[in-house]
Amino acid sequence: MKATILSTGDEVLLGEVDEKNGGFIARGLIAIGFDVIARVIVEDSMDKILRGLSFGLDNAEVVVITGGLGPTHDDLTREAVASFFGVKLEEREEAKKHIEAFFERLGRTLPPLSEKQFLFPEGSEIIPNDLGTACGFIVKKEGKIVAALSGVPWEAENMFNKYLLPKLPFSGRIFLKRLHTTGLREAEVYARVKDLDLRGVKLGICASPSGVTLYLKGEADSVSQTAEVLRGIFKAYIYGEDGRTIEEVVAELLWKEGLTLSVAESCSGGLLAHRLTNVSGSSRYFKCGIVSYSNEAKENILDVPMSLIDEKGAVSAEVAERMARNARYIGKSDIGIGITGIAGPTGGRPSKPVGTVYIGMSWEGGTYVEKNLFVGPREVIKYRATQQALDLLRRLLLGVDPFG
Amino acid sequence: MKATILSTGDEVLLGEVDEKNGGFIARGLIAIGFDVIARVIVEDSMDKILRGLSFGLDNAEVVVITGGLGPTHDDLTREAVASFFGVKLEEREEAKKHIEAFFERLGRTLPPLSEKQFLFPEGSEIIPNDLGTACGFIVKKEGKIVAALSGVPWEAENMFNKYLLPKLPFSGRIFLKRLHTTGLREAEVYARVKDLDLRGVKLGICASPSGVTLYLKGEADSVSQTAEVLRGIFKAYIYGEDGRTIEEVVAELLWKEGLTLSVAESCSGGLLAHRLTNVSGSSRYFKCGIVSYSNEAKENILDVPMSLIDEKGAVSAEVAERMARNARYIGKSDIGIGITGIAGPTGGRPSKPVGTVYIGMSWEGGTYVEKNLFVGPREVIKYRATQQALDLLRRLLLGVDPFG
Repeated sequence: MKATILSTGDEVLLGEVDEKNGGFIARGLIAIGFDVIARVIVEDSMDKILRGLSFGLDNAEVVVITGGLGPTHDDLTREAVASFFGVKLEEREEAKKHIEAFFERLGRTLPPLSEKQFLFPEGSEIIPNDLGTACGFIVKKEGKIVAALSGVPWEAENMFNKYLLPKLPFSGRIFLKRLHTTGLREAEVYARVKDLDLRGVKLGICASPSGVTLYLKGEADSVSQTAEVLRGIFKAYIYGEDGRTIEEVVAELLWKEGLTLSVAESCSGGLLAHRLTNVSGSSRYFKCGIVSYSNEAKENILDVPMSLIDEKGAVSAEVAERMARNARYIGKSDIGIGITGIAGPTGGRPSKPVGTVYIGMSWEGGTYVEKNLFVGPREVIKYRATQQALDLLRRLLLGVDPFG
Repeated sequence: MKATILSTGDEVLLGEVDEKNGGFIARGLIAIGFDVIARVIVEDSMDKILRGLSFGLDNAEVVVITGGLGPTHDDLTREAVASFFGVKLEEREEAKKHIEAFFERLGRTLPPLSEKQFLFPEGSEIIPNDLGTACGFIVKKEGKIVAALSGVPWEAENMFNKYLLPKLPFSGRIFLKRLHTTGLREAEVYARVKDLDLRGVKLGICASPSGVTLYLKGEADSVSQTAEVLRGIFKAYIYGEDGRTIEEVVAELLWKEGLTLSVAESCSGGLLAHRLTNVSGSSRYFKCGIVSYSNEAKENILDVPMSLIDEKGAVSAEVAERMARNARYIGKSDIGIGITGIAGPTGGRPSKPVGTVYIGMSWEGGTYVEKNLFVGPREVIKYRATQQALDLLRRLLLGVDPFG
């Protein structure tokens, strides 16, 4: 069975908002045996939605649509699906009750313009939305299934997993395995796997600022055997699997060991603290972050002597080390991290080009500082600096190279 | 003339990496008169790329492909396009020279496996890549144009704007105007515009955690007249236009006024500092950020008395105000911001549910604190808290309500 995913919205077509729904829908559909032909993104226009629907149903048995179920004039999904199948829209009492109950839970009165949201294609089955007002629906016709979900990611994810997925045909489990590495370039990863016997597994290799991810897709046994071989090849370069982030990995390690962490950031500007605190429960191990963007702040808050900054430069191994040590001390933590560098696009010079980043770590009985040269625009350099800092922390906690 | 955009990659199909290229390509194509039918995302598989190409060329005259030009076995774009048009791949000396020069600039030797990257469809024109090794190409055949660009966003953007766009047919300027508001709900925005005479302009209304954006598309005069009407309706709710971020807006205001800023964050965990420092040149006005995640850090680094925390709670108006004031004082800045709240998913209680966030501001001669209740998962609550803090700062700097 084949499927396509159709996302609607001017804001996603124009790249103003990242399309967050297609990914988890694709993974969910693949896991129950669907071949996902494509994700298609169109603006809120009847013509474009109909072309996307046609492509989907010409190439697949199932189309999952997200977005376009809201209350405004450019929410067109229900009209488009009804028009495609030549059916009318009808008011559905159950949706009305659902939306009224939702507003009641919020303690607000129902705004008049939501009435459009009670309309659904004739003969469709309603998909409840536990987290918002836009109910979805399923239409089954001529051997095809079209399902429509809210465009709000957390609403769509709940609707998809709880209500839609159990209603779709199951044609055998397909295993999707993702091994996330960091610290190797794409060509280095490829060189280590290109002569492997893949046992019929589809292997994808994709580089991003987080590192290089290996994607395996196929039958359970072949995927798990291939994954085991790859784990043996990449060892500690693999920091996580199946969407686990490096911040979640270090969170678990810190928590298990009962260790606490504080960080001092210059060029990464708070991103390291932000990533660490994206993990729920991070207050158990994360004590504080100091974004010492000015030299004055480095001296006043972090106690980095101005004489050291003058002598070695704010971007130097010595300052990174001192930032790490003093973050640890000021935050009364077991581990401290310091990051100082040049995120660009300005501020580089021949001896310290844009992308030069020193990362320091300090713990009881040890210190480590390394110099990195990252490429990319400002935000990518910030991201790569934090990814490398998190990887150093992970290696320290695991006791592996370069901390073995 | 119509266009479609095709992005390849397992990592984008599966949502592991956000697809960053389709948006700027869509905006660029629309600006020179193209009707963009769809963005299509497929995994790295010959069959899927060919289906995507077929859809593109059935519905449009131009297809722009990104990704699949790298050195590994699953980089298939060149093979797919050659197969689609029934031509061979040929080695192209100019690409070889380009890639050799690129490695020379980096001071590295050419790795042997890049040889695949010298191959291009017969008769294609090469698109240089100034920022990486993957050259692109253009094939013109039977009145259709297929162009392939690198999948790395900053490489693709340079290739698209510098080399591809000038080669595409220009069929009249279409104006695309985006007005970004924050502080209003989608239904509130819609209620204010639904009876407007739009002069043939296509109006889109899209909500995201940043706020609600109005999209206008049409002829220059109609778009600019409609935009002017909307500016009159939404006034200071509009913080920026055409992709300008609120952090860029406050950066310019702070810089113009010669004012400096420091921030203290609890639940937003460093995201406010991160967003402020995404703006190049932010060291001119941003002095420091303190992520006081523990109560101990609030007391030791920020001088918030533990007795106040005990009496009012760490999530309270009083603590937010004190965080703002002391961030300002410790950072020796003109303005201080303090954020404290409950990002969830745990930690909520009936009197202070998840999403409760206090934002404090302190400046010479003034203080302001407000309580917010944001909805969404943890990362969305963090984001909304920082968006609201940045909007309060903007309003303060502009001297408008609630600071008028």
